[in-house]
Formats: sequence, structure tokens, C-alpha cells
Amino acid sequence: MTAFTSLLQVVQNCDKYPYVIDPSSKDDIHHATPFILGPYKIGNVLPSVLPALIAYNNKDCKKPFIISADAIEFGPWVNTPELRTEEMKKLMDTWRQEEAFKVLAGWRNELYPVYGDSKRSDNVAFVMERAATPLFGISTFGVHLNAYTKTEDGQILMWVARRSKTKQTWPGLLDNCVAGGISYNYSVRETIIKECDEEASIPIEIASKAKSVSTITYFTYTSGGLQPESEYIYDLELPKDFAPTPCDGEVDCFYLWPLEKVKETILNDEWKNNCSLVAIDFMMRHSFITPDEEPDYIDISYGLHRRLEFPTPRKGQQ
Amino acid sequence: MTAFTSLLQVVQNCDKYPYVIDPSSKDDIHHATPFILGPYKIGNVLPSVLPALIAYNNKDCKKPFIISADAIEFGPWVNTPELRTEEMKKLMDTWRQEEAFKVLAGWRNELYPVYGDSKRSDNVAFVMERAATPLFGISTFGVHLNAYTKTEDGQILMWVARRSKTKQTWPGLLDNCVAGGISYNYSVRETIIKECDEEASIPIEIASKAKSVSTITYFTYTSGGLQPESEYIYDLELPKDFAPTPCDGEVDCFYLWPLEKVKETILNDEWKNNCSLVAIDFMMRHSFITPDEEPDYIDISYGLHRRLEFPTPRKGQQ
Repeated sequence: MTAFTSLLQVVQNCDKYPYVIDPSSKDDIHHATPFILGPYKIGNVLPSVLPALIAYNNKDCKKPFIISADAIEFGPWVNTPELRTEEMKKLMDTWRQEEAFKVLAGWRNELYPVYGDSKRSDNVAFVMERAATPLFGISTFGVHLNAYTKTEDGQILMWVARRSKTKQTWPGLLDNCVAGGISYNYSVRETIIKECDEEASIPIEIASKAKSVSTITYFTYTSGGLQPESEYIYDLELPKDFAPTPCDGEVDCFYLWPLEKVKETILNDEWKNNCSLVAIDFMMRHSFITPDEEPDYIDISYGLHRRLEFPTPRKGQQ
Repeated sequence: MTAFTSLLQVVQNCDKYPYVIDPSSKDDIHHATPFILGPYKIGNVLPSVLPALIAYNNKDCKKPFIISADAIEFGPWVNTPELRTEEMKKLMDTWRQEEAFKVLAGWRNELYPVYGDSKRSDNVAFVMERAATPLFGISTFGVHLNAYTKTEDGQILMWVARRSKTKQTWPGLLDNCVAGGISYNYSVRETIIKECDEEASIPIEIASKAKSVSTITYFTYTSGGLQPESEYIYDLELPKDFAPTPCDGEVDCFYLWPLEKVKETILNDEWKNNCSLVAIDFMMRHSFITPDEEPDYIDISYGLHRRLEFPTPRKGQQ
């Protein structure tokens, strides 16, 4: 881990997909092939994934995909949400069996919606395994909860989670109190209430007081692939006599920290990348980061709200 | 006035400068010439302004500007903040005397900073008259305050201003409780406290409780020119027994409205454009607009946080 010298660096370390593509770059990240559905771009496929996709497609005489230098799309006969879901599942099952991509070892048996046509009120184009989304650079959606209490004199203390050391991704790092991906057929609110229970033993009577306050959007990537993500943000003021406790083994313990400590550990690179963005958004909304003191105030706001070029859900997440 | 069918339309009606420039378009808005300072773009000059700029520049044998088809910049001898300020002032004084542009009739005698070099801690490149900024498409900065109270049962009521019918811009429309541009040498906080007093008779004891919560950024334009703008947002919960009152003649009266009425009047196009965006941001942060109910939730967030391509202030607004 290396420390950051500014919060803007922290944001850019997560929102790091290039804003301007440079075709002359030797870095693979500049050479993704768009994954399209009609007039919509719904993902990107990196050069590290493309050969396996071409090989798979060539083995199947029905060819589920049309692959050109400019774009990848479903073949003309794969023209319903059900067929797209089925063909994507077959592909991923094959790759999983072949152990073609490490990221598929994290198989979740959790279906994520992939959105298409922005003009339709129900615009789920198909669904696919969560762990496989980075291979196609699919835009995913989650919820993160900032839980906090206030001291007698009004100072905010934030509940911060320490991720389990045995967790597959980002083990041992700091995290928001509660977070989770939004699976197909779950609303945002249902997801946050479910995750409050599963991750932090926060009962529904308390969790239902969580307030929707914001969304952050960024485009990151890891060795597993591309991750354009939208996180819906909730704030929950917890009663002073209530402490979240680990439940499902995802979290080791919870800390109750002043925001100075939150900021310090963020700059010290002790947080899971995207979770530090959620905490920064919280600190801006709660006057702890202010424009008179933070020289990068506006640039940080840009990085927390990147305009992603993919269709967004048209009907909540249902 | 025409009503809007969605909040996203309201946002797009303000954040309306094209995201993609179309050189084949016949609309002037697609044919602005960048105003640059070294490697930074600090503005844009529309075709409606360019001939007057060329004529002015040609009259002066020292030629304060270099004007090409690709860019406009200061001449090499105009190389300090003082000289840039002076040359810009001479130009605008001339245009004002000549009544070359209607927008200069709104002369304020108020200096706005123009930011350059993003790497310097004090990056004010020069200052110029506020009313003239749209002619060069200069990025400007303001503060807006959402004042509200809570009823016994926790319902939020928002203080909404009705702009004076004699105001030069947007007369008679609805507005945030307090708002103002940030002049050169004022901090964000100083500006909001000054404007609270001047516009709404909110004394410093109360105004100083205003909380910095957010910033919205958008790129709009009017017949007067281009306006890329950043508004720092403050929330202020007013005591139940305190009502803002007009003071400097800018506001006719204040209303205390439930958020349903705020949203209804926004959709009915009764608000000054950018102020409705501030109120929408408030309604998102206070759980009145939520992702499960608002199909454009993420797209609205994009429009409230447009990444502008101009340098931002590096040291608050001082």
C-alpha cells in the first residue's frame, strides 16, 4: 500500500478508466471492443478476453455473437431477453469449466440485470452471473450504507467495517458499514434492508430508517476486468446504544470513528477503493469536506459522478 | 412556459450545451472557438461574438489577442494576471460604450475570477466583470442555499423565493431562498453569509449554521452567451419561528412549501432554470426523490454533476 497525497488521488485511483481513449497507447485498457445492443453500448470487451470469445463463437455453428473489429453484439437470432440470458449463461458456464478466467472462480450464483433500450420502462435486456460482468465490462449497480451516530455535542462518528481476511476480494480492508450488489428483481430499498441484516445484524426496524441520499458513479478496473459501477447511497443514523455486529462472516469487526480518522485511513490507502468514495461523498454532504478548505472540491465531485455511457435502469432496479 | 414531463427534462433544459459537438450542425452553439491560456481551455467564444472581437483586435496595433480558426488567446505580451485583467477590461469597456452586446447592459461592477493553471495553488489567471463572462463562455462560481424547516412530525418544508418582477434576469420566477455569485477575493462561506443577510435578512448567528453539502455543475446558455457554472450548495435548517424576509429588492416574497409543491412548480416550469437543479439536488439528498421511484435517478445525477473542461479554483475561492 502506498499513501495518497490528496483525496482527488483516492478518487482517481478508483475512477481510473481513461476519459479519452488513445488508440496509439500500448495499454490494453485503450483497446476495448464495444459490446452493443442495437444503438446502445452496454459493455466493453478487453483484448485479454477477445480471443476466448472468438474461439467459443467459432465452435458453435449457430454463432451466438457477431464479432467485428468495431463491435461485438448478439447474433440476430438471439433477440429476446430469455435467449440473451441463455446464450450468455452457456458461454460463462463453458469458461468456468475451462477455468478460462480467474475472475470466474468467484462465481456467486447471483444474477445481475443488464440494461438496454433507454426508452422502455422495463429495459432489462438480459441477466447474467455477477462474477462474469467484468469480462464484458457490464455496468453494475449496488447500494452502500453510511451508518453513523452523533455525540452529545453534535460530532459525527462513522461506523466503519473491517472486511474479513478470508474474503475473496479486498480482504482485510476497510469498508462502509453495509454494502451489496443489487440482484435481478430486487429493489434498491429491499437490497439495503437485506444487507443491513446479513452484514451488520441491523434489524429491519432500524434499517428501514435508512435514507436515500445520493448516488456515485465511476469506471474502474482490476485484473479481473472492467467495472463501470453505480452505487446508490443511503445514510442511517444509528441509536447511540446500538452497535452493528458481524453476521455472515464477510466482516471481521466494526469501528466507530470520528471523520478525521476516516479521512486519515482513506489517505493511508486502508480502504477498499470504491468504499472510500462513498465515505468521501458522505464527508462532503456532512460539511466535513468543504470548498473553502478542499482545493480539489469540484474535481472530486466530478470523479464521484462520472457520466457512464451505458443505459441506466428505467424502473428502479425491479 | 411549457410544463415538463420529467425532472430529467428540467435538468436537460439547464444543462443544455451539447455533450458532443457536431461540426455539420447549422446551430451556432456547435461552432464556438476555444479561448485558451497555455494548455488550458478557459472559455469559448460563439460566432455571434467573434466578428466584434476580431474588429476590436485589429484596431489595436499591439493586438491584445491572437485569434485563429482553432483558438483565441492573449497575445504574448499580455502575460500577467494584471495585464490580462487590464486588457479584458478595456475590451469590455469599449463594447459597453458601443452597446455591442445586450448582455453588457446588465453591468454589475462585480469582478469574477477566471482560473488557469490547475497545478498552481493560486490559479486566478485574471479577473473580469461578471456580466461579461458569457461573451467568453467563462466558467463561473456561485453559492445557493436551501433553507428549510421541519414540522413536528419530521416533514420538510422548504423556503422558496419569488424573484422580484423588476429583476433584470428571470423576473418573477421561483428561486432558492438565497443565492449569489462568488466575487473575486470572497470565500464561499463569506459569500453565503453575506447573501443571507442581503437577500433574506437572515442574521449571521443563524446563517453561520448553514452547512456545505454538495456542488452542482452544468453548462447552460442563454441569448446572452455561454454559462458553464458551478454552484456550491448549502443547507440551512431555520428555526420554526424564523421567516426570511426580502431586504435588497431582489426578492418579492418567500413561501414555505412542502416538497410536493416544490416538485410540482418545478415541473410546471415556474423556476429559474439553475435554481430548480439546486432544489432537485436537495430533494435527492433528503430522500424525497429516490432511485426506486424516479426512473431517471442516475441520469439526473449525471446532469447535476457535469464534468466541465475548465480549470477549477485551487484554493477555495480566495
